[in-house]
Amino acid sequence: MEVNLIAWTPEPEKVVAAAARLCYSPDAVPELMAGLEREQVRRLVGQLYDRGHLSTFEHVSFQFSVDGVSRALSHQLVRHRIASYSQRSQRYVRETGFRSVVPPSVRENPAALTRFQAALDELQSAYAALLEEVPAEDARYVLPNACMTSLLVTMNARALLHFFELRTCTRAQWEIRELARRMLTLVREVAPHLFRRAGPPCETGKPCPEGEMSCKRKK
Amino acid sequence: MEVNLIAWTPEPEKVVAAAARLCYSPDAVPELMAGLEREQVRRLVGQLYDRGHLSTFEHVSFQFSVDGVSRALSHQLVRHRIASYSQRSQRYVRETGFRSVVPPSVRENPAALTRFQAALDELQSAYAALLEEVPAEDARYVLPNACMTSLLVTMNARALLHFFELRTCTRAQWEIRELARRMLTLVREVAPHLFRRAGPPCETGKPCPEGEMSCKRKK
Amino acid sequence: MEVNLIAWTPEPEKVVAAAARLCYSPDAVPELMAGLEREQVRRLVGQLYDRGHLSTFEHVSFQFSVDGVSRALSHQLVRHRIASYSQRSQRYVRETGFRSVVPPSVRENPAALTRFQAALDELQSAYAALLEEVPAEDARYVLPNACMTSLLVTMNARALLHFFELRTCTRAQWEIRELARRMLTLVREVAPHLFRRAGPPCETGKPCPEGEMSCKRKK
Amino acid sequence: MEVNLIAWTPEPEKVVAAAARLCYSPDAVPELMAGLEREQVRRLVGQLYDRGHLSTFEHVSFQFSVDGVSRALSHQLVRHRIASYSQRSQRYVRETGFRSVVPPSVRENPAALTRFQAALDELQSAYAALLEEVPAEDARYVLPNACMTSLLVTMNARALLHFFELRTCTRAQWEIRELARRMLTLVREVAPHLFRRAGPPCETGKPCPEGEMSCKRKK
Repeated sequence: MEVNLIAWTPEPEKVVAAAARLCYSPDAVPELMAGLEREQVRRLVGQLYDRGHLSTFEHVSFQFSVDGVSRALSHQLVRHRIASYSQRSQRYVRETGFRSVVPPSVRENPAALTRFQAALDELQSAYAALLEEVPAEDARYVLPNACMTSLLVTMNARALLHFFELRTCTRAQWEIRELARRMLTLVREVAPHLFRRAGPPCETGKPCPEGEMSCKRKK
Repeated sequence: MEVNLIAWTPEPEKVVAAAARLCYSPDAVPELMAGLEREQVRRLVGQLYDRGHLSTFEHVSFQFSVDGVSRALSHQLVRHRIASYSQRSQRYVRETGFRSVVPPSVRENPAALTRFQAALDELQSAYAALLEEVPAEDARYVLPNACMTSLLVTMNARALLHFFELRTCTRAQWEIRELARRMLTLVREVAPHLFRRAGPPCETGKPCPEGEMSCKRKK
Repeated sequence: MEVNLIAWTPEPEKVVAAAARLCYSPDAVPELMAGLEREQVRRLVGQLYDRGHLSTFEHVSFQFSVDGVSRALSHQLVRHRIASYSQRSQRYVRETGFRSVVPPSVRENPAALTRFQAALDELQSAYAALLEEVPAEDARYVLPNACMTSLLVTMNARALLHFFELRTCTRAQWEIRELARRMLTLVREVAPHLFRRAGPPCETGKPCPEGEMSCKRKK
Repeated sequence: MEVNLIAWTPEPEKVVAAAARLCYSPDAVPELMAGLEREQVRRLVGQLYDRGHLSTFEHVSFQFSVDGVSRALSHQLVRHRIASYSQRSQRYVRETGFRSVVPPSVRENPAALTRFQAALDELQSAYAALLEEVPAEDARYVLPNACMTSLLVTMNARALLHFFELRTCTRAQWEIRELARRMLTLVREVAPHLFRRAGPPCETGKPCPEGEMSCKRKK
């Protein structure tokens, strides 16, 4: 998995703070922006987060490139609807020699790994053979969830906070959890105050809606 | 593929017509509803469609059950974000003995079909063996796009018109095109005027944005 | 203010429960629907709410007519973006003799009420005079926030839960709080289990994000 | 009216072009970005627009400050739901001595202007008097549509194209049309190729859904 933050709204914390001040001030936006100091920005952003006034967090967005993840992950990822996605098409790109994501539980189990690789070898061969006979969009019906894909993903800071809450939780599958952790690390570098307390409810002081039984942490 | 319309907003055309009249009338909504006659509803709905005043079409929604479609289709389907989905989980449901969608191009080509079925047999066996060793959520990495899934899908009438425009077009893949055609047939039975001119641009009098070369109709 | 529930997805609780069972069952949707009993539906809906699995609540939507509310309210209301609205247009409807919403604080204060009514009388007269000279869309610039409007509003059950959480809170303005309370009463009649624990955080056991100081209940 | 573009996704055209190439290429995103040349970006963006593949335009967003517009405008503006808004609150900001937008049709008509200003003077005085008696959130019920407000608005490039299509049309009210024209001018400076053919249907070669009769251009 390779994840990069390729772009983001410049000065994201200042934009969020200006949006917040606007709601409570008679001044025009340019003056508000000009008058905002570093420490004030930090404090405002903290208050907004505490009070759940997160609509102001929507004004800034972040663009990620995501390579080397499975189609199992991408099918989960695109269910987050307040976001924008572009994804490599299995209809238009021939996936001959495709690379696959191997789950850690398989990689660490020799019997499972042997079986897994035999199945994937068979699929490589079947896919190549089918490409000779039918369109790529139909040959791909034998491609497995493990098949690697690439995406460009855009989310605003509010949608990211929600994404991190759900997907850094141990209830999420290991692969999308890894993606979420990496995305969080990346945005914290450029907007530390916006994402200071991002993460699963048990780390951010919110009540955990899942039963204790289901949590790998609590077992 | 089995598609059923399991629920919808009652009297959908009347609700849309009432919404439209509301915008241009000093009357309260209940009076507007009471005064609407069948023929008037039909005419109003036609005018709204012609002028592109489709926000009124959002007030009514339709619930479909979709069974026996591939995960290739479901990954495309859930990219439509103004909609709600519930889908059978490959993390929580063991797919032992899973059934598969066979593309027509494969079914009609004996060489392809033999290769396709050999690959799927291998996957059935590999999946069953992996289930003995690793969690279902990881065993599923060998499941193919062809693997059947089930969904419950809700879209409002405006989102459906957009969905039909894109997905009944010959540029869409055969499987989601088949789904779109069936959904269109179902909603036309209960709301004929809302969906009278639904379909690809070339059937509804809109300009086709795709090049002629790419269209199977024009070849 | 007059609020009516004019339509909704039939059997809303059963649809939500079926969506939930689908995610964890190998059965097709029609069988799932057929096998659902009243008590099971009630229990499933409760579990979904407790665990925050609210995407299933999106499958059912509710249509309200709202008459006799102010444009101050409607400007707040339409900020809820996961919803559909049709509203009486001040550009196309001449508001001669418009009716106004009088805030309780004004109604109960004789000095304020006299001043308020004098201002509104002046506006009635100014609006009528301007209509003789300029288009209605420009004459309306003198219409006050108090001016009554009508809307048709559609929200799904998940969006409604969020709406109720924010707008039944004492921090919300009295008018939209009254609207939210009425909408909640109406949907509880047709879907009691979906909305059993709807309301402000302090009534539903969630942490209150607002400071105690700001709450009229805690003073 | 004062409109400023205060922030935007850096290199917006390159981000859109990279998203488009990703869909049709086996390469990872960073390589795609690195290999994109100026002329190629321009050509790709043009093709995407022509074919209506606008999901790639969603990856870039633009932040505007909008000051000195009426609440009539802001009520229209926030109906565009695929966008984010922060707006000066009439509940928390005391609008004593508020400034007003005067429609051109009123400004150019001495009789109308006199009547308009008399009404607004009365409202200034009524609002100030009410503030002595009731909370600001209730006093504001006498504030007129003309009352000036400030917003911070974020839209992505796809939402902007839609906004420009509807709101630069002569059917839109003069004030929001002026806002749309200014926003279009601003984004064209930083992303000329994305917005080269933005505007009303009659200027961009699309069919006009409105009847000719209703258009001020065709009269």
